[in-house]
Amino acid sequence: MSANRENDNNTQSIELLPKKSDFSEWYNEILWRAEIMDVRYPIKGMYVWHPYGFGVRKRVYSILRSLLDVDHDETLFPLLIPEHEFMKEAEHIKGFENEVYWITHGGTTPLDVRLALRPTSETSIYPMYALWIRSHADLPLKLYQVVNTFRYETKHTRPLIRVREITSFKEAHTVHGTWDDAAEQVEAAVRLYQEFYDALCVPVLISKRPDWDKFPGADYTIAFDCVMPDGRTLQVGTVHHLGDSFSRTFDLTYEDINGEQVLCHQTCYGISERCIAALISTHGDDTGLCLPPQTAPVQIVIVPIIMKKREAEVQEAAQVLCDELQAAGFRVKVDARDLRPGAKYYHWELRGVPLRIEIGPRDIDNGVVMTVTRGGTKEAIQRENIAVHIQEKLASVTTEIQSVARERVQGQIHMVSTRGELLDAAKGGVGVLHWCGSKECCEKIEAESEAVLLGGELRGKLVNVDQSNCIICGEPGTASLLGRSY
Amino acid sequence: MSANRENDNNTQSIELLPKKSDFSEWYNEILWRAEIMDVRYPIKGMYVWHPYGFGVRKRVYSILRSLLDVDHDETLFPLLIPEHEFMKEAEHIKGFENEVYWITHGGTTPLDVRLALRPTSETSIYPMYALWIRSHADLPLKLYQVVNTFRYETKHTRPLIRVREITSFKEAHTVHGTWDDAAEQVEAAVRLYQEFYDALCVPVLISKRPDWDKFPGADYTIAFDCVMPDGRTLQVGTVHHLGDSFSRTFDLTYEDINGEQVLCHQTCYGISERCIAALISTHGDDTGLCLPPQTAPVQIVIVPIIMKKREAEVQEAAQVLCDELQAAGFRVKVDARDLRPGAKYYHWELRGVPLRIEIGPRDIDNGVVMTVTRGGTKEAIQRENIAVHIQEKLASVTTEIQSVARERVQGQIHMVSTRGELLDAAKGGVGVLHWCGSKECCEKIEAESEAVLLGGELRGKLVNVDQSNCIICGEPGTASLLGRSY
Repeated sequence: MSANRENDNNTQSIELLPKKSDFSEWYNEILWRAEIMDVRYPIKGMYVWHPYGFGVRKRVYSILRSLLDVDHDETLFPLLIPEHEFMKEAEHIKGFENEVYWITHGGTTPLDVRLALRPTSETSIYPMYALWIRSHADLPLKLYQVVNTFRYETKHTRPLIRVREITSFKEAHTVHGTWDDAAEQVEAAVRLYQEFYDALCVPVLISKRPDWDKFPGADYTIAFDCVMPDGRTLQVGTVHHLGDSFSRTFDLTYEDINGEQVLCHQTCYGISERCIAALISTHGDDTGLCLPPQTAPVQIVIVPIIMKKREAEVQEAAQVLCDELQAAGFRVKVDARDLRPGAKYYHWELRGVPLRIEIGPRDIDNGVVMTVTRGGTKEAIQRENIAVHIQEKLASVTTEIQSVARERVQGQIHMVSTRGELLDAAKGGVGVLHWCGSKECCEKIEAESEAVLLGGELRGKLVNVDQSNCIICGEPGTASLLGRSY
Repeated sequence: MSANRENDNNTQSIELLPKKSDFSEWYNEILWRAEIMDVRYPIKGMYVWHPYGFGVRKRVYSILRSLLDVDHDETLFPLLIPEHEFMKEAEHIKGFENEVYWITHGGTTPLDVRLALRPTSETSIYPMYALWIRSHADLPLKLYQVVNTFRYETKHTRPLIRVREITSFKEAHTVHGTWDDAAEQVEAAVRLYQEFYDALCVPVLISKRPDWDKFPGADYTIAFDCVMPDGRTLQVGTVHHLGDSFSRTFDLTYEDINGEQVLCHQTCYGISERCIAALISTHGDDTGLCLPPQTAPVQIVIVPIIMKKREAEVQEAAQVLCDELQAAGFRVKVDARDLRPGAKYYHWELRGVPLRIEIGPRDIDNGVVMTVTRGGTKEAIQRENIAVHIQEKLASVTTEIQSVARERVQGQIHMVSTRGELLDAAKGGVGVLHWCGSKECCEKIEAESEAVLLGGELRGKLVNVDQSNCIICGEPGTASLLGRSY
């Protein structure tokens, strides 16, 4: 943590965080006070990561990387895309043309070819794939990269949620021999992202975006939405079946087993730093951040409870405990600052540290330490074999965070079975109803609910997704998601 | 590794790599054949990292990160800098104005303020530092970031060496109370970089750049140069004492212990992906890459020596060995492809894998395995407690790589004690001579040697750097570096 902010925060410690029920205020304040990001950078929609926020981000990304690394390879492509490559895929460019930053000058010289800052990387990656892929033996190809991407957002920007520089888009791009193989990869990617959000303890709703809302150039798009505390949804991941549309544009063919040149089929999928927004917003409370142990830069803070008489002894015991827990693989810190314990508790609760250990002279005498979870559960535990106890404690913290989040989100989901319920369906949350997939019925649903039909073919662990009939026309329908999104 | 290149490389395996003595050819070919990068991206000076190259890069960067993380915090600032901020520091902008990429349009709309792609990040970071730093308690501040930076290079570009997108500049920016504190940080950074290059087994020469060659805006610059196989030097790291020049520009002050507002003093230091170029060029040979174990994506490759009769047994023994070594923390791979052993040896030697283990039926019977280092040393070692033996083996490989590199570079350093030796001083390497520091003597030295005086106050472990008199004027001088640089 940068020393420079300590001061500010000691001053701030007398002010209370806004209530989470006032979500927008709460969100802005917590980013600032818990040292996630600084919004004062002099370009709209671009922000600075504080070291503590960067630490959270680093842990979250390493979870995703380890899931991808099982059968993807990490790689890196240039940020800039020549205009002629970018303009090749008509539907794709139409989807992005208002959002692309253009470089026109190098030094004082006008460039011959304008260069786009990638809003997404299809047009930078696929011309290279076309050089690399020759035969069926080269398939499947599964690469990913973690890169900054840019969108000239004209809407209201908001840190981590709607930004002009996505400082790290984690995007995978796969190539397959057939449409079906690509469809299977879509399912594999959906499972992978589900596992990722499970690790963050963030409940997600997974649905197929309506055709008119899919990724420009894709056959279909499966999207992950989380439900924010204010009931609005946040799209936190997408998986696209690209069919052969980019393969046609970029001439991506392979020689099949019979010696024929055939078109490749592709998928791509990505998660932006919105996953951090989801993590923060899902678990934080009126006291501050609340981080699942796997994502916390500091998992355990040790606060020595100093009495004048045995100060050195307590400080040393705290340090020995810290060393022991570090050696066992935990991320631990002793807070030895000259502050009263209450100020330290406040400091670390604000930053979401999952577990606090207090150790004082009496604890030393009794061979115990006092543990306090971020949720407020106090328990004295044996000092002996402490690593084992702490491991269990952190696991129980994770479970608790998970169930609190799930309960909150389940309370925000309204099952809608009659047309009359539509108007209230997305109030303070999302509605789940059955829909046939037609544009016509969608328009009626949206008009009557004053909300947006986010997707059909709903799945995930949060709701029952049986087949039933469309709430409008009575034809067979799938469980569908209605809400208001960020 | 991406399957797509295997094919190419099997075909290539019949062609020999160009000799390393033909360095330029060798360098280009090895980047391609060992799957480091692809140079066919359609923008000059921008390249694509192959997964294998990315794996090397990842290991190298994690070495540097772990050194920085001891007392720096990682952070992240936006890529784009508004023109008015960028233009604030006159000397600085003069140094970069011909090299900056400018964004002028967002979508189809001209921007009110042009945005620069950072060529380096002083002007994006320091306005934020000015907001953060208030008092002496906030100092020192030591942050770093790993980011892409851009230079519109008009000279001949070359992968990893002279590029338009530095895909990962590892830059640190520190702030201190006094000029002396900043000077001490310069020394700390020099030690840190020395340790980093020691870990890569890359010999470096450290010198103070002449005043006319320092970083634009700096008080002085300490530079790291390695000597490439062709004798030209490559600047692979710089450490700058910025004095208070940026503090003046960006109004970086703090309240000192007496309550006075005083100017901060700053340093910054960075290493680009040239460190990978140095690693590859220093250790590679006519057979391919040669990677110090700490930097190798694959440290050990196991090649099962198959005889028809006991094939399943050998394959299984290879896999058991692999699992055991992986559990011990090594990066290991079994090459179970249906190829003759020689083709496999070639494949992995080209990619610089430090150690090969061969295991066949007779080895199983005798309770041994055959180890072959990338340098060609063969030794049968006991199968029992193998992790310990392998640890020693890899340590000896590192030592060997180190001493080979040092010997080669020492052979390229010519000690120059008389003016008459100047003409040959930098032939095929670098010259070390004594110089008083004056521009006038420098010009004479450069004219007579047809080389460039890279720096004075030479240090490092490679040469004797006693004080002596200037080779031109006879005044007191310091050991200085003469060469031709990339």
